[in-house]
Amino acid sequence: MSISYPGYPDTVANNKKDKNEQDYLDLIREHFPQNGPGIVLGPGDDCAVVSCPDKICLTTDTLQEDIHFRTAYFPPEAIGHKALAVNISDLAAMGGTPTGFLLSLTLPQDGLKNDFFSRVLKGMSDLAAEHDMPLAGGNISRGRDLSLTITAWGTPGPRFLTRKAEAGDVLFLIGEIGLARTGLSVLEENGEQQKKYPQSIQSLFFPRPRVKEGKKLAELSFVRGLMDISDGPAADLPRLIGPGLGADLDPDFPVHSEVLDFAADSGMDPLEFALIGGEDYALLGATSPGSSRELLRLFPHCSFLGRVTENQGLRMDGKPFHGRGFDHFK
Amino acid sequence: MSISYPGYPDTVANNKKDKNEQDYLDLIREHFPQNGPGIVLGPGDDCAVVSCPDKICLTTDTLQEDIHFRTAYFPPEAIGHKALAVNISDLAAMGGTPTGFLLSLTLPQDGLKNDFFSRVLKGMSDLAAEHDMPLAGGNISRGRDLSLTITAWGTPGPRFLTRKAEAGDVLFLIGEIGLARTGLSVLEENGEQQKKYPQSIQSLFFPRPRVKEGKKLAELSFVRGLMDISDGPAADLPRLIGPGLGADLDPDFPVHSEVLDFAADSGMDPLEFALIGGEDYALLGATSPGSSRELLRLFPHCSFLGRVTENQGLRMDGKPFHGRGFDHFK
Repeated sequence: MSISYPGYPDTVANNKKDKNEQDYLDLIREHFPQNGPGIVLGPGDDCAVVSCPDKICLTTDTLQEDIHFRTAYFPPEAIGHKALAVNISDLAAMGGTPTGFLLSLTLPQDGLKNDFFSRVLKGMSDLAAEHDMPLAGGNISRGRDLSLTITAWGTPGPRFLTRKAEAGDVLFLIGEIGLARTGLSVLEENGEQQKKYPQSIQSLFFPRPRVKEGKKLAELSFVRGLMDISDGPAADLPRLIGPGLGADLDPDFPVHSEVLDFAADSGMDPLEFALIGGEDYALLGATSPGSSRELLRLFPHCSFLGRVTENQGLRMDGKPFHGRGFDHFK
Repeated sequence: MSISYPGYPDTVANNKKDKNEQDYLDLIREHFPQNGPGIVLGPGDDCAVVSCPDKICLTTDTLQEDIHFRTAYFPPEAIGHKALAVNISDLAAMGGTPTGFLLSLTLPQDGLKNDFFSRVLKGMSDLAAEHDMPLAGGNISRGRDLSLTITAWGTPGPRFLTRKAEAGDVLFLIGEIGLARTGLSVLEENGEQQKKYPQSIQSLFFPRPRVKEGKKLAELSFVRGLMDISDGPAADLPRLIGPGLGADLDPDFPVHSEVLDFAADSGMDPLEFALIGGEDYALLGATSPGSSRELLRLFPHCSFLGRVTENQGLRMDGKPFHGRGFDHFK
């Protein structure tokens, strides 16, 4: 039986590229184990069947060619890694533990070159193995561009760390901001500068979902809310704190040296650049007043971005901050 | 809080079309209730949280512009309906009851015209309401073409009706075959003939997932295996019976009058046309020898396609049958 991909008119299995398509399916089988913890029925039937606790977290995200990646400079492994990583990051941001995923692939009509697809799967399966996440099934169809939609699920922790904050809460970050944007800027310019920004490029290509940190944060009652940053703090902060509140950002917020260098080279304000940067998948949270010292003890690498205010809007040093979030390839 | 679509760099919320994109999100909110049975946490956070029984069925499928539909002649409602219907059909084919879904949308970069998107959502939400399926969350990104990936889940019945058959089993169908292919052929020819084929066009645009029938079949111990037909029986039958077995098809198999008419007009063999037709989402199953009379009593509209044989391959009247499955827009 084939590795699922049924249930939908399978243009792939029925066109002239039969052999290539079977190769794709075989490659998927090679890269992913057919069974795993919690998988009652894996790929090859109309549905996957998984065993679950009384509640599960579910998330879905698409990685789209020329919107979220370019084949010109993304290593294929990074495409596979990132498609899964952004989904795992959503689970981490709820304090959940990932337990499985489905992959819906759209393959370009003229196929993929050489070992490209195999390397995409390698990047994905390495990350899946790291998190003990079996591939439960999926779907292949054709389209003009390469696109990977993943649905991932997991077990919630002792509570769901939703997006939430109250006035007076301290805003904290676990992870860097602005690095991936630096990497993207450098790569889009296609200049000689790339060697100067290894961590920025790594952050763009291979973001690390922070599952352990999310689980640990969910156990701390003083942590009010949490999300992962995909569009940059300027765009995502309002999503964390919700309507009716604002934030006062600390102008002494620490910024990675590569971000500082790039901003200096480009004549930009490094803090503003970091705040509108995206795709770092750092965790952004709100912790209740007075708890920041304990948080820092438990997460020595966490940093503080500012405070939640009753005044709406984002401010820095008392002045309104109008930076926009991350804008792909614009 | 926005209707989810977080967790991933949201090109949509950050480009010049802000207002249009907010319109999209508002429209989704209008069309789908924010809560429903089993939804612990709905759209607007990093993940959805749903309550579940000890096992769930999961499936994912993509509906891709110019592969699975054309905006030129598909009513927008049909695009929304069909994107969800093909997923529900997968659940039905396991004997499951759908309980929720996620929607990952890729919107064309130049946007959608007029009330197009609203009508897509109308088609989807009407079908969702019919099956009591809340939209638990999702994602929006940009791309060259319109694409809808849905992940749907549900509660299994007393058993999972997998793809399975044994030699001697009787092959049965619940639903028509060849109708959707007739509809597609007529529409692609763009001729005057469309009025002659109302049910064919209806079958292509608005396939009905057979949830009730799937559940009832799962309760019958003599029913061996089941799947839904998306690529046509010629392509899907081997997936039902698996390797090592074959099928002897009955040349007196009943075919819908519209299929007969279209085949006659086009100089094709109607049976062959029906067998390679796809997208009807009929249920195809195997029932143990001697049980077909009881099956017919319980499902008066079911029909019989032939028998499972120990000889590999598909035969009709003793002659090998080489028809291929459904081939989109070729």
